[in-house]
This record gives sequence, structure tokens and C-alpha cells, in this order.
Amino acid sequence: MTIINNQIILAERPNGMPDQNTFRFVQQDVGELKEDQVLVRTLFVSVDPYMRGRMQDAESYVEPYKVNEVIEGGAIGEVIDSRSGRFQQGDVVIGMFGWQEYYVATDKELRKIDPSLAPISTHLGILGMTGLTAYFGLLDIGQPKEGETVVISGAAGAVGSVVGQIAKIKGAHVVGIAGSNEKVQYLKEDLKFDEAINYRSTDNMEAALKATCPNGIDVYFDNVGGEISDAVFTQLNRYARIPVCGAISAYNLEKLDLGPRVQTMLIKKSALMQGFTVGNYADRFNEGAVQLGQWLQEGKLKYRETIKEGFENIPNAFLDLFKGNNVGKLLVKVADHQYRK
Amino acid sequence: MTIINNQIILAERPNGMPDQNTFRFVQQDVGELKEDQVLVRTLFVSVDPYMRGRMQDAESYVEPYKVNEVIEGGAIGEVIDSRSGRFQQGDVVIGMFGWQEYYVATDKELRKIDPSLAPISTHLGILGMTGLTAYFGLLDIGQPKEGETVVISGAAGAVGSVVGQIAKIKGAHVVGIAGSNEKVQYLKEDLKFDEAINYRSTDNMEAALKATCPNGIDVYFDNVGGEISDAVFTQLNRYARIPVCGAISAYNLEKLDLGPRVQTMLIKKSALMQGFTVGNYADRFNEGAVQLGQWLQEGKLKYRETIKEGFENIPNAFLDLFKGNNVGKLLVKVADHQYRK
Repeated sequence: MTIINNQIILAERPNGMPDQNTFRFVQQDVGELKEDQVLVRTLFVSVDPYMRGRMQDAESYVEPYKVNEVIEGGAIGEVIDSRSGRFQQGDVVIGMFGWQEYYVATDKELRKIDPSLAPISTHLGILGMTGLTAYFGLLDIGQPKEGETVVISGAAGAVGSVVGQIAKIKGAHVVGIAGSNEKVQYLKEDLKFDEAINYRSTDNMEAALKATCPNGIDVYFDNVGGEISDAVFTQLNRYARIPVCGAISAYNLEKLDLGPRVQTMLIKKSALMQGFTVGNYADRFNEGAVQLGQWLQEGKLKYRETIKEGFENIPNAFLDLFKGNNVGKLLVKVADHQYRK
Repeated sequence: MTIINNQIILAERPNGMPDQNTFRFVQQDVGELKEDQVLVRTLFVSVDPYMRGRMQDAESYVEPYKVNEVIEGGAIGEVIDSRSGRFQQGDVVIGMFGWQEYYVATDKELRKIDPSLAPISTHLGILGMTGLTAYFGLLDIGQPKEGETVVISGAAGAVGSVVGQIAKIKGAHVVGIAGSNEKVQYLKEDLKFDEAINYRSTDNMEAALKATCPNGIDVYFDNVGGEISDAVFTQLNRYARIPVCGAISAYNLEKLDLGPRVQTMLIKKSALMQGFTVGNYADRFNEGAVQLGQWLQEGKLKYRETIKEGFENIPNAFLDLFKGNNVGKLLVKVADHQYRK
């Protein structure tokens, strides 16, 4: 039987905001499996802001995507054929197979997940890279102490919403910055943040931060960069820690991202800024995943997913990331689980 | 006997570069000593870039100077009268008595120094705050490993020249950035830096850094901020560490210090930037001073001092700091030691 594999490739590197021309849909036959190979059918794909960086031909912590190759990224699938002793038909697996309907994997590229513990999509979100990013960035770099104030930008996003909840677990005063009243309500009412600021309806971010952070800011988990972060930097306490996770405001800029230089502020406050990516903590993933799973089961962590439907909608879902419309983790559901046991 | 004390006070807060109008010379009678007080005659005063920050009425890690009060700063003096059992006439002492010829101290404000170990002026420089700033900033934040590349801006200055030598002791490839050919020669020939760049005669800092740092930059000890640092940031290695000690390029700016925002760079390199002041390490000063003294006695550390003469020249010496003319630690000698034992 010949299976046609729909794939999305990088058609051209975007200059500024990506658009439909950035991507192209192509088809390819899925070949025969070799020894130790597994055929996976994609169920969910993850779309993440960091993927924008990989579309540039610039050195970074991960290889840039190649033009005319499939967009790589986290995905969950089910095994529909296997020549590996480690996997059998119906297994749910996670890997980096990206934006395609089928993937021929060597068995070492896949990790089996247990669908009985939590919805399988959570392994791309709160129990996966997203949750681990929040966990290690906040706890390893931010190191919030009980009673300290933690501010999070992009707070209603996939990572930010987990950061704030972990900070609450650690006893901090937690303030989220987000871009709509609906998100502010979500942060305060559902996720129990102490305060939340809608930066789009706030004229004076410094005043809003002063009002919501009366004791100053000890930890700033930065997902956005830009002017929001500039404002936060004016309210830091001595020995503040700034895990720098993302700079979504800068990813699609066509010009240099200019702002106030931070050196004088860092000296005055003896503050620390540290960029990181979750891959830095690969040797501690198990620790993080166990703790996140435990908090989830105890009801201490909530999450929301925005799940778009349909393989053809993956590029639009990705572009939505930069419009600030989604709450929580953004996923695309590509197919239903066929061989559910 | 009435002693007239010449003092220099802050006449007005500078806007931009300080000048002669920033300071005023005044005279005051030295009163009678009370119990536990000590009368000190100033021998050397230290002029340091950080003092510019204290001339602003802005919150920082040290209190701003008050208008019409004596400029406070590190100084060395000799005890000429004492009502404390801890000090006697002729003792050489260090304290923060600042820009005045005499100072009535309570004995807790002073620390005795031993003039037989090293020239007394070194206690304001390589064996004092300057050396300790280099020691803790480089070793605690920068953490250079053998074979790594350490770049230092303001490399011929009081702190920078010590940083580079400690980095050499630790086995690093050391590259200094300074502002004259004379300084470049000093760094390479006298202090044995591996490379040095005269930024004033270099058109393309990025290219100069690439040429002198073929393996990239692991530690950047930042004394200057501004465009020099922007260029260094383009050449960082993964997991680079940036102790942020000073931003002399920004201290006298009348406008906002704008430059490329650092977030994206920090994320790409998982790099760390940390502001600090030597006071953060007060509980480890003894460790640092012992080690610096040992290296000095072993001939592993060299230092240069620029010593101006005369109390009336203190403001000019301070203003010279921002002209980039001095090499090593800048001091003003106010008087000779009278009661040398």
C-alpha cells in the first residue's frame, strides 16, 4: 500500500512577519520500513514562538530550518506500523517529527507516552517542553522565595501560565502581564494570580506595575522583551533575577530592536538576567516531569489548550501565535487516534 | 589649636558631564574630639567612576550625595589625634572620609592598614575596593575556566587591569579593549594580556574581536557599556557570562542610553548578565584581600597608579576619569605622612 504523506516545508525565509508564502504544502510517498523503523501517524503538532527563530538563517541554539525541508517541531502520533521491538501498533509516541501527516522514525527518536495519565496533548504542553521551560526557568534562574514578587510577561501564554502557577505554589506574590481583558480575567480567576495587567489598555505600565507590585519586583520571567520589559526593569528590587525565556516582540522585527541599554540598571540593582532554553536542562527533564505531573494530579496546576483542527491549518495556527489571541498552549489536531486500545 | 579643614562639597547636581560648577571648596573648623573619636589627616583620596552615579538624585545601591555636603569616598589618612584606645598618632587608616583634608571619625569607621606590606596607596587600589571588585566580579560571576576567552572593556583602568591579570592566572585567553595605543602596549607588554584592541583606532569592532578571539568569547567583564559592549555581545559563546561592573559610557549621557535590546542574544546564547557592586561581597573581603596580597607578593599581579598631587586638584582628577587618559588606579595625594614611624 502506498501512503501519501502531506508535508509542510519552508518555502522561503521570512523577512519580518511570516505569511502564507513562507510555507508550501507538498506530498511524498511514505517508503517501506527498514529494520528498527517505526511508521507514525501524526495526531497533534505543536506550534511555538521559538520556531520563528529557526526560520532565520542565523546561528542559534538550534539549527536553522533548511529551505525546502519539512518544518521540524514537537508532535504526538500513533504507531501504525513497526519493525522495532520497542513499539507496536497503537502506541502513542512523542517526537520532533513536525509538520507532516506521517513520519518514518528510527525507534530512538521516539518516546512512548501513557495515554491513561493525562490527555495525550498535555505532553506537548504542561507535561512537555512548555511545562519544563516554565519549571526550570523559574526555579533554576528565577529562584522565587516565599513572599517575593514575581512578574510574568506573556502570562496567559503556554509557558507564562505555568510559571505563574508554580510561583504561587512557591508562595510568591504573582503579577501577570497579558494583552486582553479576557486573559486578565483568566489569570486572576482561573489561575489565581494575585494581579494581572492588560498592557494594551494601560497607558502607563510603570504606574500599573507600581500599583500591583507595592514591594517592587524580585523575579521577572520575560517572554516578550520590548517596551513591556523596559517598564518592568524600572521596578526591580536589589538582587532581582530575570529568566529570559522569549522576546516575542522582537521575533518579526525588520529593524534593529532598540531600547534602553540595561547595564546601568543591572549594576544599580545587582540584578541578574539569564537567557535559557529548555534543552539546557535535558539531564533534569525527569525531575521536572515528575513534579509537574504530581502538581497536575493534585489540582495545583491548571492548563488551557487552544486546539485548532486540521493539517491544512497548521501555518495559520503558527501565525496566530504572533497575534496574541490564544490562551495557553496552541496545538493543531491533525487526526484522531485510530487504534485506541 | 584650631585646625581649618578644607572640604569639597557637591555644589549642584550635574546634568550630563560634571564640571567645576559641580563642586565648591569650603572651609570648616575641626572641632574637639569626643570619647572614641579620632582625628585623621587625609593622605590620599580615591576618585572613582561610580561616584558620578552618587551625584544623581536617583535611587541606587549607595545613597546619593547630598547637595552642600562633602563628597564621600575612599581615602587613606594618618591619625594625628586620638581619644580611642584602638588608634594612636601615626597610625595609617582607611575609611570613607572623602574629599576633605581632615576628618573626625568614630573609631568604628576606620580600619588600620600596615604600611610595611605594600605602599599605602595600594589599599585604595589593587589591595582595596578596586582589586576586590575585579576579584569577585571575575571569579564569582565570570567564572573563567582554563582555555576560555575573557574580554575586558576599560581594560587599562583600575579594575580592568586587575581583571585581566587574574584571568591570566586562571589560564584564560585574555583580550583587553582600551582607548589608546599606549594602553594597548601596557596591556600586552607589561600585563601580558594575549591581545588588546584600541577601540578608538578600530573601524570594525566585531572584526577586531573575531580576529583576537578566534574561539569566541566566554566571559565579558563590562566596565563601559555602550557600543563597545554591543559589539562584544555579537561574539559570545553559548553559556557566556557577563559581569556588569560599570557603564562609564552612560554615566554622563543627557539622553536615554539606547542600543540593541539584549534579550534575543541572551536567549540564543543561554548567556548570563549580572550587575554587581563590590559591597555585595563584604562578607568575603578578607578572602579576596588575602589572595590579592599573595599574588602581589608572588609577582603575579602588577599595578600602575596615576597619582595627582594637591587637594585643590581633586575635582580635575575626577573629571579626568571620563576623558580616558589615565592608566590604572587614579588617586590624589593630599599630604605627606608626617608621623611615619
